[in-house]
Amino acid sequence: MKTARVVFNGAVHTATPAGVGLIRLDTGRVLEERDVSWLPPVEPRTAFALGLNYADHAKELAFKAPEEPLVFLKGPNTFVGHRAQTVRPADAAYMHYECELAVVIGKTAHNVPRAAAYDCVRGYTVANDYAIRDYLENYYRPNLRVKNRDTCTPLGPWLVDRDDVPDPMNLTLRTFVNGNETQRGSTRDMIFDIASLIEYLSSFMTLSPGDVILTGTPEGLADTKPGDEIVTEIEGVGRLVNSIVSETDYYRAG
Amino acid sequence: MKTARVVFNGAVHTATPAGVGLIRLDTGRVLEERDVSWLPPVEPRTAFALGLNYADHAKELAFKAPEEPLVFLKGPNTFVGHRAQTVRPADAAYMHYECELAVVIGKTAHNVPRAAAYDCVRGYTVANDYAIRDYLENYYRPNLRVKNRDTCTPLGPWLVDRDDVPDPMNLTLRTFVNGNETQRGSTRDMIFDIASLIEYLSSFMTLSPGDVILTGTPEGLADTKPGDEIVTEIEGVGRLVNSIVSETDYYRAG
Repeated sequence: MKTARVVFNGAVHTATPAGVGLIRLDTGRVLEERDVSWLPPVEPRTAFALGLNYADHAKELAFKAPEEPLVFLKGPNTFVGHRAQTVRPADAAYMHYECELAVVIGKTAHNVPRAAAYDCVRGYTVANDYAIRDYLENYYRPNLRVKNRDTCTPLGPWLVDRDDVPDPMNLTLRTFVNGNETQRGSTRDMIFDIASLIEYLSSFMTLSPGDVILTGTPEGLADTKPGDEIVTEIEGVGRLVNSIVSETDYYRAG
Repeated sequence: MKTARVVFNGAVHTATPAGVGLIRLDTGRVLEERDVSWLPPVEPRTAFALGLNYADHAKELAFKAPEEPLVFLKGPNTFVGHRAQTVRPADAAYMHYECELAVVIGKTAHNVPRAAAYDCVRGYTVANDYAIRDYLENYYRPNLRVKNRDTCTPLGPWLVDRDDVPDPMNLTLRTFVNGNETQRGSTRDMIFDIASLIEYLSSFMTLSPGDVILTGTPEGLADTKPGDEIVTEIEGVGRLVNSIVSETDYYRAG
């Protein structure tokens, strides 16, 4: 089952995609996609993101692969839903997408052994974890200016239940810029797999329902410009559509 | 005015300290301190923390002072209130306190110029931003294992209104371990002052009411052991009491 959070008629509803629209989970009413605004499918209490969790991407950045998971936190204001706009800073020279499998936690969890890790998973969604490369520093990275800007982490369109994704460690990830495929990889190339990440994080931080773990991105990054449409797609999970807007246009609009 | 959040009779109340107890802000009823549990005075949407924001502390760690604010995020599960216990990991060789002035944001703010920064401040509280130094890495620090463990950031006891702290950039900070003063400094020695931090952060992230900025710590760090009582105190703001517990004892207790 796929579960989306959408705004319709001034209120938040859960809905599941059906044909060209969505079906509200409470009333069974059909919503036209043009009548809804998409929110991120969850509101994480804590949002984790992995740096350099695909060996090819670490190499692309000319960094050695990390010896333990490189994890940082994401603030809530960076998340936006499907079909939202992401702001490109006026002074940025290089802002790239990152297609990532997002693991959604389903229950409170502490000290979870690897073998029980998937018991804590509620499901999966797609993240586009944009980075403003200009601000990357070798020393104290990844810093907030690279990875935590408002609107810079589209998430969605929906949550797919865990059991509907039989092998999350063997999914193709792809990104399309204005319809052209620019990034392709597979979750099987993660350095630290999903079970390892849950074991690692829960060994010193409590995981809560709705928390997300953005598991990193493979190689194939490219700059994005205002007006570009960026689609990040994960096999069996979803196709997340986003567009880039200039800082000037975004703040002029409200 | 000082505003605390305490649990009394199974519910959260706001209260202000008075003599040896507290006065509930709704009913005016007096609460004995022994009858309450203290919560952090705010629940931040986003919690920011500064690394190396005092030159003497940067030197103590043998790092050069940062050229722009070194900011990282704190997850919600790391915060505990006044008089709570903080867990020392079983395998830690060096876990030190950090007395820090915490600035509490009072309104939604984006792109705030320096001159208007204090308009966004609701008040101040005391943070003890423990670090497990064992896990410190030069390359990708500060990482979650150093700075985001459950219970490792006591906050409180209360929020003091902004106008009750006429000069927040000239306050003495002190830490006492089992009654002995081990750390002393002044907020005037911050590298990036409060107004600069608000200007910087709000230039790329929206600040929200209740958000906190932990502004860094001066030199004078020392290891802490299970059973130690750690008091972090800031002139005119408050005196935050905390104690260290072993991982074994903490999880045995629940």
